[in-house]
Amino acid sequence: MSGKLKLYGDPISGNCLKAKWTADCLGLDYEWVPLDILKGETRTDEFLKINPFGQIPTAVLPDGRVLTQSNAIMVHLAESAAGGLLPSDPYDRAQVFKWLFWEQNSHEPYIAGRRFRKAYLGHDDAKIDAEWLPRGNAALALMEGALLKTDFLTGAELTLADICLVAYTRVAHEGGFELAEFPAVRAWVKQVERSLGLEPAEAA
Amino acid sequence: MSGKLKLYGDPISGNCLKAKWTADCLGLDYEWVPLDILKGETRTDEFLKINPFGQIPTAVLPDGRVLTQSNAIMVHLAESAAGGLLPSDPYDRAQVFKWLFWEQNSHEPYIAGRRFRKAYLGHDDAKIDAEWLPRGNAALALMEGALLKTDFLTGAELTLADICLVAYTRVAHEGGFELAEFPAVRAWVKQVERSLGLEPAEAA
Repeated sequence: MSGKLKLYGDPISGNCLKAKWTADCLGLDYEWVPLDILKGETRTDEFLKINPFGQIPTAVLPDGRVLTQSNAIMVHLAESAAGGLLPSDPYDRAQVFKWLFWEQNSHEPYIAGRRFRKAYLGHDDAKIDAEWLPRGNAALALMEGALLKTDFLTGAELTLADICLVAYTRVAHEGGFELAEFPAVRAWVKQVERSLGLEPAEAA
Repeated sequence: MSGKLKLYGDPISGNCLKAKWTADCLGLDYEWVPLDILKGETRTDEFLKINPFGQIPTAVLPDGRVLTQSNAIMVHLAESAAGGLLPSDPYDRAQVFKWLFWEQNSHEPYIAGRRFRKAYLGHDDAKIDAEWLPRGNAALALMEGALLKTDFLTGAELTLADICLVAYTRVAHEGGFELAEFPAVRAWVKQVERSLGLEPAEAA
């Protein structure tokens, strides 16, 4: 069996957009299959046959095998396409992985977490874990420190690290974070958005 | 400048042990530099010169460059040593990455989080986020499902995925999780401990 790469995703999810933008950046020929999380489209019998955990993004590779976890999909696509985004130099490469793992542990839980609850579930701050705001701000401050030194997170070139981190950073204001406090992060968001051909997520 | 790989870590931290066990498994010649987190040894001026964020594990590579994030260190060591633990087949390799990213997002925060608060800070359950217990159990249940099918997380061979996930799973009981409810996970823990030459963390 051989077909076209399929990416199942919902554009409200930064995790899904990471996989999509990586495929776009690499110039891959793929099919985007939109699923609406809030309408329960990731919980249908049809989709649960593809991914029993009902999570997106889910990639169905050209040979029919399934791959999950946004950052694992990004790495797989970049390694398979061999066209940038993941440096070949071992140290530069390790720096990209460092940001990808850090994102899952120290950025996404707080920044995407607050945004989903505030912008999609309509929770107010009192209902959201009080630690998430300072932890999200600490993540943004760490990025600010890095981006004062280099244009992109790992140096002069756009890599998977930037695509991964921009997904929720560009909509951090929807979770109550003030990007104006992190000017280097804000300038980097605009630069990555331009690199990916995206409309700015935040009003100027 | 050329020297020996140095790994700064504290054996109470599963994240540090992941890096150490990977180096051991690959047969690397390295120096383990023990730091006591609870005594503040990761916050000394000397260590902050090496890692300004004061986090461990921290690797100082033979050329003197610094690498952080436990899973990024594991991947870098395995890719540099080219001796197993990270498959060359693109799909098998992607499965390993899937588990590594999942661990940082869906396992470590809850299982390591509860264990640190209960076993090292002496907090009782009332002081710990009530979501962490069910979320940690959901992570263990997901592993149970996978380990009912294969001996190791990605198939018949030990990979970085097993070393990564075993670090906090083997001491999950210290965080109030009952491994007896997950017999395939428990059997896998014992198997990985044997593979790594470790004393069992849990009484039989």
